[in-house]
Amino acid sequence: MIARITVTLKPGVLDTQGRAVHDALKTLDQATIDGVRIGKYIEVKLDETDIMKARTAVKEMCDKILANPVIEDYSIEMDSEG
Amino acid sequence: MIARITVTLKPGVLDTQGRAVHDALKTLDQATIDGVRIGKYIEVKLDETDIMKARTAVKEMCDKILANPVIEDYSIEMDSEG
Repeated sequence: MIARITVTLKPGVLDTQGRAVHDALKTLDQATIDGVRIGKYIEVKLDETDIMKARTAVKEMCDKILANPVIEDYSIEMDSEG
Repeated sequence: MIARITVTLKPGVLDTQGRAVHDALKTLDQATIDGVRIGKYIEVKLDETDIMKARTAVKEMCDKILANPVIEDYSIEMDSEG
């Protein structure tokens, strides 16, 4: 089973990396860009067939290691095909 | 319109960051983890209503700035609600 985790900064938290990428994208002279936010994408491959157990395990991983709950939100998507 | 971009290392490219996170997750003593791959998640807010034009613009951003086509793959998801 594969868990796809997206970790993003909470709204309101200053995203300096996003600001820098926004400036870089402006050089392309394209459609007006209103904003850029950068996050992390993490794929965890688990040896577990029970989707509920796997989700609970991944939630603990996010709370304890993968995300900083003070400034970050996360979302988990389980894929039993992987 | 919001474009949600996921940039991941191509299969076979050594993911040292993923290796480190894998080791960290082992300390939680949970379900067996077979592997961890780390990528980037980028949200670009565009002032463009035409979804095809927006997608073309985002594709150019990925090819030229957001991803390194030599070692990285990317996927784009457009959300006209944003």
